[in-house]
Amino acid sequence: MIYTAHINIMPLTELLDPQGKAVNESLHSLQLHAIQNVRIGKHIVLSIESDNEENAYNIAKEACEKMLYNAVMEKYSITIDA
Amino acid sequence: MIYTAHINIMPLTELLDPQGKAVNESLHSLQLHAIQNVRIGKHIVLSIESDNEENAYNIAKEACEKMLYNAVMEKYSITIDA
Repeated sequence: MIYTAHINIMPLTELLDPQGKAVNESLHSLQLHAIQNVRIGKHIVLSIESDNEENAYNIAKEACEKMLYNAVMEKYSITIDA
Repeated sequence: MIYTAHINIMPLTELLDPQGKAVNESLHSLQLHAIQNVRIGKHIVLSIESDNEENAYNIAKEACEKMLYNAVMEKYSITIDA
């Protein structure tokens, strides 16, 4: 069966996010002053062929840990859709 | 009240995603052959001060349309958390 994994990779909360800060300021210059705390990360969508959802989650986790995220600067979250 | 908007910006389905394709091939070289169709976009989290959720959604939408996404190559989706 084919599952779809949605992975979010975000800069750690404790770290500065210069890209987010730049976007925050640009949004203010467009008069969108209600917006604060912009943080920018990656959204990765992939298909996984697997017998069950737990196994699909484990494959997505392995992909994150072996390649997709940088443990020093980022955290990840995974959701699996059937 | 402060709402949190989660925005996903992804390359349009009809378009090639060279970054996703490169990651797909690299995951295969790590023996993760169950993974296919990798697509990579942005995940943006921001706080919005607003009276109600509908207004917060509209502010996030305005930020997307004025700045965050490129209509020629990308699509966006917004979810608002209280």
